[in-house]
Amino acid sequence: MSNNGRNLTMLTDLYQLTMMYGYHKIGKADRIVAFDLFFRKIAGDNGYAVVAGLEQVIDYIEGLSFSDNDIEYLRSLALFDESFFDILKKLKFKGDLYAIPEGTVVFPYEPLIRVKAPILQAQLIETALLNIVNHQTLIATKASKVVHAAQGGIVLEFGLRRAQGPDAGVYGARAAIIGGCSATSNVLTGQLFGIPVRGTHAHSWVMSFPDELTAFRAYAETFPENCLLLVDTYDTLKSGVPNAITVFEELRQKGYKAIGIRLDSGDIAYLSKKARKMLNQAGYVDAKIVASGDLDEWTIWDLKAQGAAVDIWGVGTALITSSDCPALGGVYKLVAEELDGVMYPKIKISENPSKITNPGYKKVSRIYDKDSKAVADLIMLDDEVIDQSRPLTIFDPVDTWKRMTIRNYTVKDLLVPVFQDGIKVYNSPRLLDIQTYAQKDLDTFWDEYKRLKSPHIFKVDLSWKLYNLKNDLLKEYSL
Amino acid sequence: MSNNGRNLTMLTDLYQLTMMYGYHKIGKADRIVAFDLFFRKIAGDNGYAVVAGLEQVIDYIEGLSFSDNDIEYLRSLALFDESFFDILKKLKFKGDLYAIPEGTVVFPYEPLIRVKAPILQAQLIETALLNIVNHQTLIATKASKVVHAAQGGIVLEFGLRRAQGPDAGVYGARAAIIGGCSATSNVLTGQLFGIPVRGTHAHSWVMSFPDELTAFRAYAETFPENCLLLVDTYDTLKSGVPNAITVFEELRQKGYKAIGIRLDSGDIAYLSKKARKMLNQAGYVDAKIVASGDLDEWTIWDLKAQGAAVDIWGVGTALITSSDCPALGGVYKLVAEELDGVMYPKIKISENPSKITNPGYKKVSRIYDKDSKAVADLIMLDDEVIDQSRPLTIFDPVDTWKRMTIRNYTVKDLLVPVFQDGIKVYNSPRLLDIQTYAQKDLDTFWDEYKRLKSPHIFKVDLSWKLYNLKNDLLKEYSL
Repeated sequence: MSNNGRNLTMLTDLYQLTMMYGYHKIGKADRIVAFDLFFRKIAGDNGYAVVAGLEQVIDYIEGLSFSDNDIEYLRSLALFDESFFDILKKLKFKGDLYAIPEGTVVFPYEPLIRVKAPILQAQLIETALLNIVNHQTLIATKASKVVHAAQGGIVLEFGLRRAQGPDAGVYGARAAIIGGCSATSNVLTGQLFGIPVRGTHAHSWVMSFPDELTAFRAYAETFPENCLLLVDTYDTLKSGVPNAITVFEELRQKGYKAIGIRLDSGDIAYLSKKARKMLNQAGYVDAKIVASGDLDEWTIWDLKAQGAAVDIWGVGTALITSSDCPALGGVYKLVAEELDGVMYPKIKISENPSKITNPGYKKVSRIYDKDSKAVADLIMLDDEVIDQSRPLTIFDPVDTWKRMTIRNYTVKDLLVPVFQDGIKVYNSPRLLDIQTYAQKDLDTFWDEYKRLKSPHIFKVDLSWKLYNLKNDLLKEYSL
Repeated sequence: MSNNGRNLTMLTDLYQLTMMYGYHKIGKADRIVAFDLFFRKIAGDNGYAVVAGLEQVIDYIEGLSFSDNDIEYLRSLALFDESFFDILKKLKFKGDLYAIPEGTVVFPYEPLIRVKAPILQAQLIETALLNIVNHQTLIATKASKVVHAAQGGIVLEFGLRRAQGPDAGVYGARAAIIGGCSATSNVLTGQLFGIPVRGTHAHSWVMSFPDELTAFRAYAETFPENCLLLVDTYDTLKSGVPNAITVFEELRQKGYKAIGIRLDSGDIAYLSKKARKMLNQAGYVDAKIVASGDLDEWTIWDLKAQGAAVDIWGVGTALITSSDCPALGGVYKLVAEELDGVMYPKIKISENPSKITNPGYKKVSRIYDKDSKAVADLIMLDDEVIDQSRPLTIFDPVDTWKRMTIRNYTVKDLLVPVFQDGIKVYNSPRLLDIQTYAQKDLDTFWDEYKRLKSPHIFKVDLSWKLYNLKNDLLKEYSL
């Protein structure tokens, strides 16, 4: 049910089908090729990204199947012949797929997913893989920034109403949990993924009663054990907080503990400090203050710097849409092609050097120092082995004179097998376990890489073998 | 199948359910209330918005139904009692819902959807309605701007791989069609909504052959009647266009007509003009030039101004995410409550005047001059009638001294009934008919309102009766 019960086989660009048809017609459909899925730039100039979406990718691939209705629709396009439909009807993913597990900290040019399959299958899945991974990685990364800004404060995902459609809400909330949010307001996400959901009441609740105090009392009566009151419908400090304190007092007399208040407008720094003082003076030092309303990582960071007395941050639009940068530009590029049993590397050249691909069937290794802190990532060919008994010298792939020699290190391969010969060999962890893993992974990076503004750039280098291969292929094309 | 076969009943914020439970527990669940769905600001400072999403709203409301699994999940939250689940199990939408038809040009503060229903039902649907309408209206509006910038050129929607999840791709493409795009690359959207799909081949096609000419020939052989070639894999002017012309020549000898070329990188103004000249000199004046690659309305506008010879624009990321402003801030506010058979207006006050709601059960009338051009919109109470035999004086609701008297006008009510007493009384038009309607509706507005930069502000005024009601209620609260 990871894609909420839907089959997404038709979620593709038409050009995947026209190319597949072309490969079929010229007899190349079974040619084994390799594609890398990677991005060139982290959305919003963050220092790192948090990869997400693999569970939905797996579900999509396992569900690949053209129904009779699908075939009928494709027939109506008058582009293809029946021999192609015979193939589509039987189409399953039979290839190998490696991926970096969800929640891992990743960087530009690293293959997040590596596909090796007959070209017909590898081509079909491009669009859905990009759609899913681009979206969830974008939001997991944004959430990680917001959680970082909260500096230990709790962050709740509140964005469903502003998300770009139902899936953006549901899978965006899923990704937000991976990025470190503690809970979501989104009931469907809670149901699908077994994660905490949160919510109390809106302004409309208060407005539907003759006055605020009556509204608060009615809420407290309904949820005596979960009484968190929205205090800004009329006037936060003159009406909302005093009325909340009155109701908390009544709850206390009945033996219940007040949960807290929510501020949704006005100056959160000023109001939260004033409200904190009022709550404390009334004896509610444990009552939490939740802030919401057009928050993002920068506002939270500044509010914290100004001493805002906020315990819990409810973040909506900015998080669920990654509003400062609403797309991750992940791409899926052909990197190798098999001829007579040998994989030949392929390169995509461009006048723009950043758009030139890294050729060949590759892997990514992360190098850790003796304190288990990440030092650098190394993209290399799949058959390369790092001899960990010897010092490792890495170099910048643009400014190759920039070199660094590492001693006393360990190496971890980031790509893990997910499908082998079409058989699933990987089970997605539970969402909360992915969240825990993501936090641990982030802990292996120095704070310098996590700074919101101008983070230090983590080294992602190429092995000498890959670097030389790339240059040799570039020379071939420039002849 | 408008929501692709899913039931979205659980697509809601938890606080809707906690409030519903509260209303139930205090015996207010059947209280009739009215909510307006509206936005305060057009995303991206455009001069107008194009409303979209109603078909999916209808499908959602018709499908409202808590399954046994849903109830079981809600029970596991330990927030509600069994009497509430008994109500949820039977819950259907029994109210009235009016909406402005999809494709209509709309403005801030206009109720796009007006709901009158028992508060339990009206509250539940808030989140999904906002999610759907915010998203599709955002993208339809963005598409309308992009199509406007193309000044008669054809715009194709190409964004699925960068969309925020599957729905953002599918319903974003639907909205893009409403906004004026001619077709989409998204096969699932084509299948679900019966709209044209487009696509040819990617760079990977070219890279999978020994050379570009062989790749082009193979493509032409597969699609002799649909041969559109991507010419920028290696070198657009030195290799891509000459090879395309060679293949077009071979097609011509076999009696086929070349469709054209696609440019996906480099300077589109320069390359398209050069390529046009090369194609014309070779006798392919009818061959189209398609441009794609990080386009948005501003780039298209500038490229047109520089004489770019582009016939068709493929727009991806910027359109499908509305990248400059990725959320429409639509809200859903309580505007009236029934007591003893009478609807009493409700107002949400705020220190920020733009956040004060227009109270009461309302409608929107559009005023047209004798040339059938839109002059102003008037938000008024539902029982008000404009006497069209007399001149109409409207006034600015902020600067009330700004007045205008209109003679020889006609009036159209924008809200139409969609559900009455829970019964659907409206059938969504076919998507391409919505597109046609949207274009006609846009034609009733002067170009001044459609300018990309600093558009003239269309007048949206309040009737005197509504204005006075609002002021009376504000005075009550400020006493």
